[in-house]
Amino acid sequence: MHEIRKDIIRDNWVITATEFVLKPRDFPVKKLTADESKPVPGYNAHCPFCEGNEAVTTDEIAAFRKDGTQPNKPGWTVRAILNKFSALDMNGELDMQRQGIFEHGNGFGQHEVLIETPLHGQEFHQLSLERIESVFKMMQLRYNDLVNDERIKYIQIYKNRGLFAGASLEHSHSQIVAVPIVPQNKTAMIKYYEEHHRCMICEMIEAEINKQERVVFEGKHFIIICPYASRFPYESWIIPKQHESHFGDINAEELKEAALLAKKTIAAMIDGLHDPSYNMIINTAPVNVPHQEGYHWHLEINPRLLVNAGVEIATGYFINPAAPELSAAALRTLVAEQMAIGEQ
Amino acid sequence: MHEIRKDIIRDNWVITATEFVLKPRDFPVKKLTADESKPVPGYNAHCPFCEGNEAVTTDEIAAFRKDGTQPNKPGWTVRAILNKFSALDMNGELDMQRQGIFEHGNGFGQHEVLIETPLHGQEFHQLSLERIESVFKMMQLRYNDLVNDERIKYIQIYKNRGLFAGASLEHSHSQIVAVPIVPQNKTAMIKYYEEHHRCMICEMIEAEINKQERVVFEGKHFIIICPYASRFPYESWIIPKQHESHFGDINAEELKEAALLAKKTIAAMIDGLHDPSYNMIINTAPVNVPHQEGYHWHLEINPRLLVNAGVEIATGYFINPAAPELSAAALRTLVAEQMAIGEQ
Repeated sequence: MHEIRKDIIRDNWVITATEFVLKPRDFPVKKLTADESKPVPGYNAHCPFCEGNEAVTTDEIAAFRKDGTQPNKPGWTVRAILNKFSALDMNGELDMQRQGIFEHGNGFGQHEVLIETPLHGQEFHQLSLERIESVFKMMQLRYNDLVNDERIKYIQIYKNRGLFAGASLEHSHSQIVAVPIVPQNKTAMIKYYEEHHRCMICEMIEAEINKQERVVFEGKHFIIICPYASRFPYESWIIPKQHESHFGDINAEELKEAALLAKKTIAAMIDGLHDPSYNMIINTAPVNVPHQEGYHWHLEINPRLLVNAGVEIATGYFINPAAPELSAAALRTLVAEQMAIGEQ
Repeated sequence: MHEIRKDIIRDNWVITATEFVLKPRDFPVKKLTADESKPVPGYNAHCPFCEGNEAVTTDEIAAFRKDGTQPNKPGWTVRAILNKFSALDMNGELDMQRQGIFEHGNGFGQHEVLIETPLHGQEFHQLSLERIESVFKMMQLRYNDLVNDERIKYIQIYKNRGLFAGASLEHSHSQIVAVPIVPQNKTAMIKYYEEHHRCMICEMIEAEINKQERVVFEGKHFIIICPYASRFPYESWIIPKQHESHFGDINAEELKEAALLAKKTIAAMIDGLHDPSYNMIINTAPVNVPHQEGYHWHLEINPRLLVNAGVEIATGYFINPAAPELSAAALRTLVAEQMAIGEQ
């Protein structure tokens, strides 16, 4: 059976299976990636993100480094640089122009890359927990620095891993895009808060804990769920249980748990879903605008087991051939297995 | 340089290059598809869409057949069936249910497949013009039949060709999805017409003909443009020059020209863009609702040279690394070359 489910967070619809139609082995996409040869982590002379090749990148914005090492030289563990092929730059202001029916703005904003490891071929979920914490700390540092610029209204942190998630470079990295316009799909939660004086995600967490149908794991500060209107098979959200608007505001203990849950969820997907491409996305409140407190930040991990087809491009609706309830059941076991390994 | 361009048709934004950043050869995706072995057109025992394998599919809804042949038997050129893995069925009515914050409807609607050729491995652009006309005629027949059901409010016709366009079967086919809700991204044009008593697309055509920057080809009834806010590199729209709301209403002469332009545009892309995956999408007016006449139907062909990455999923905005103006210039030459071959 199928349902059309309302995605209240993005004010959209998802056509979803309510029983599995496709099982992990049936997805067409992973067959192409499963046989990709994986390099042994190390140095790659042709990779701009490898330690030793710093001269090839734009200047370092920030880095965690060994004492006594110099910027733009070896000795770092996490490194933030400007995206060399950025669509955006921070000169001037957002400048909107209109000519008849054609309206455009200049490419105002900032596009950064966070290199997550000095080693080529070392994957995000293979990093030690301490290293993943460092990556999240660097994201937070960059986020809080960009917030200080009043011209910036939204900061999108995301990661593309694998060809089917849009990754163009193999070396493990995330990206940060700071823009002068709040994306439309971030506004429904804020409007709901203004109208109802309640948070959609707080209500969602309460309902999910009551139902226990789509909960993958519950930690001290965070809960992992497969959301009701999941757009992707095995889509998983890591959500702070207490209402919190800005990713930039989380404390060290929360950051440590978020890092652990991201590592374990991704490791569970890599292990259980045949090494899929995936996107990790941090949805957080708009900045430098009113009513930010209505937003409830959360981290989203989307395995990319299917390609968006014509019907999705044409209608704007997603089709999810795997029931979120059954995705959650499968991930519950897989994440528990990863947790049993301990904080490696 | 980059611009943020307003997509007025879908009320969204596209971050677009204004000069080429990626040239046809630079796209990562086509490298995987270019070497795919192409079968010689013929019979494939394992393909449910091949002539001779009719018993494997659901019952035929309609077909163009040789005189004296029976439904669900060989002898057809174009054949419409129900999608065996449909997410939708036409029993009952749309029934919306709400439980707290969770809202869903049943999977009401119809999902059909149009098999475009009896031969496996014969591609859409390789069909004779007469055969492509037959495919468009069958789309029109099915469209006009589905319109008669008052419960249906939108009919989406689309085609997925190749892995990176979401095709799951190789045998050339299109799909028709009839749904009881008008997709949100079809409503901006209608609202504009209601408010301004003018059609967005009529204005767009006038401006494009004046500018001649993004026009690929101008025919008697149709114009081909790369739209101002193109979401995909080399995205091309085939638009009727006279305001016309429903694809189902076009006459035989218009249908013939639309078939010719679709064939030539796709052949130009296959030839000039290294055999890309693509989606062909027919955007047409909602049905059985007021104010349909504000919509201006058009056909969209989107080569899929990139995968939608994390930033697109996260923000809902598309990023197009190829300037529509330069895409149009390249396609102008490629389409002219195909036109010179004649109506093959």
